[in-house]
Amino acid sequence: MQQHWVRFAENGREGFGTLEGERVRHWHGNLFEYPERGDRTVALSDVSLLTPVQPSKVIALWNNFGALREKLKLDVPAEPLYLVKTPNTYLEPGGTIRHPGNGAKIVFEGELGIVIGQRCKQVSEADAPRYVLGYTCANDVTLAGVVDRDPSFGQWVRAKGLDTFCPFGPAVATGIDPQQLVVRTWLDGQLRQDYPISDMRFSVAQLVSHISQDMTLFPGDIILCGTSVGVGSMQPGSTVEVEIAGVGRLANRIA
Amino acid sequence: MQQHWVRFAENGREGFGTLEGERVRHWHGNLFEYPERGDRTVALSDVSLLTPVQPSKVIALWNNFGALREKLKLDVPAEPLYLVKTPNTYLEPGGTIRHPGNGAKIVFEGELGIVIGQRCKQVSEADAPRYVLGYTCANDVTLAGVVDRDPSFGQWVRAKGLDTFCPFGPAVATGIDPQQLVVRTWLDGQLRQDYPISDMRFSVAQLVSHISQDMTLFPGDIILCGTSVGVGSMQPGSTVEVEIAGVGRLANRIA
Repeated sequence: MQQHWVRFAENGREGFGTLEGERVRHWHGNLFEYPERGDRTVALSDVSLLTPVQPSKVIALWNNFGALREKLKLDVPAEPLYLVKTPNTYLEPGGTIRHPGNGAKIVFEGELGIVIGQRCKQVSEADAPRYVLGYTCANDVTLAGVVDRDPSFGQWVRAKGLDTFCPFGPAVATGIDPQQLVVRTWLDGQLRQDYPISDMRFSVAQLVSHISQDMTLFPGDIILCGTSVGVGSMQPGSTVEVEIAGVGRLANRIA
Repeated sequence: MQQHWVRFAENGREGFGTLEGERVRHWHGNLFEYPERGDRTVALSDVSLLTPVQPSKVIALWNNFGALREKLKLDVPAEPLYLVKTPNTYLEPGGTIRHPGNGAKIVFEGELGIVIGQRCKQVSEADAPRYVLGYTCANDVTLAGVVDRDPSFGQWVRAKGLDTFCPFGPAVATGIDPQQLVVRTWLDGQLRQDYPISDMRFSVAQLVSHISQDMTLFPGDIILCGTSVGVGSMQPGSTVEVEIAGVGRLANRIA
């Protein structure tokens, strides 16, 4: 069923529910285990959205899109190549991305996030889709100039690990076909990325299956699918929006 | 004050406390905020030890010891080089390290773990020690042959990210000087590593300070200091013990 699940704070209390236009319906229990639909709705403007889930880990793919691979003249990867974004990076929709200052260059990467719905370990590609709860929008923010600064060790975790460097949300959208999705990223209202998920080297089912061979995935864990062409730098004062039609539109300001 | 803090399950309930010889004293409240000493003690043999803390992230250093650097002919790093071990890797003392099978080679690395006691962000080297709660023993288990398999991307997070690949404990030892510590690793009773923490390129205070410039560290987060010479492979049926006098002795079987 198509739903958009959000998590929110209302008068200092956390809740979760589904979007109904400009309102949020309260649900009760646990999002991942028999959530119960509540009777009450509240105006979206009366709540503060939180990250829609609280991942134990966010895995981020590198070199997963054909168009960017061709532009950067990279080889086709034989297996999914990934790093991890640490929990200090998680940022709610509408939250402020902190620029590290010191003349640093930070880069936006609009991405599709796969949200895991059930604990999974060593699942087949055929079975993988039933472990997926849904999809969200993410900005895989990266500090430029760090990854290759030491020639002996790629500093991926650090470059992508600064506080606030992983905004995601606003919702987890269920009941949609990821293969049809298109990711668009807007910098201060200008369209900068516009690429199809169908260009992925590894599909959603392949990513979940491959990664689950090594790491157990837990409810709320996210796999960021990687990005494609059009990434660019963000300045303090800018706003970046990642929009995936059918999934949502994630907006964050940089300061 | 010198204490050895443990976390445990007793009759299906979680608790935490301090070691007193072969007994555990119950404490109440929160380990990181004014824990209260309880009246009751229980035999160690009547509880199951859990990981002593529950980190939001475990950061693991690479190339931080002089002796291993010389052996591998690496350059002296200009800054701490690190990756992250994901929560699915955490394993309690006495827990079983799962060998991935398929003829894979997995390697033990005995290490000192720095356990963070207070939220810290951008702290100086001089201030860093007061954000450290204490120290623990860890085995930074690694799947060989993965890191450099793709020449364009070092797969550190994956190679060190398999389930059960981060045993740590049994306790967090407080009130000790890390600079005097020695790490010893035993494979089936044979001494395989025996190296001083004083050989670190970056000291405990420098690691906490450097890493906190980028990432906020939270209570219970762990920084693994990296390893030195003597690492080797583990077979199913083997037992690896990581012993740091004054800190503890961590034993895990491989299966």
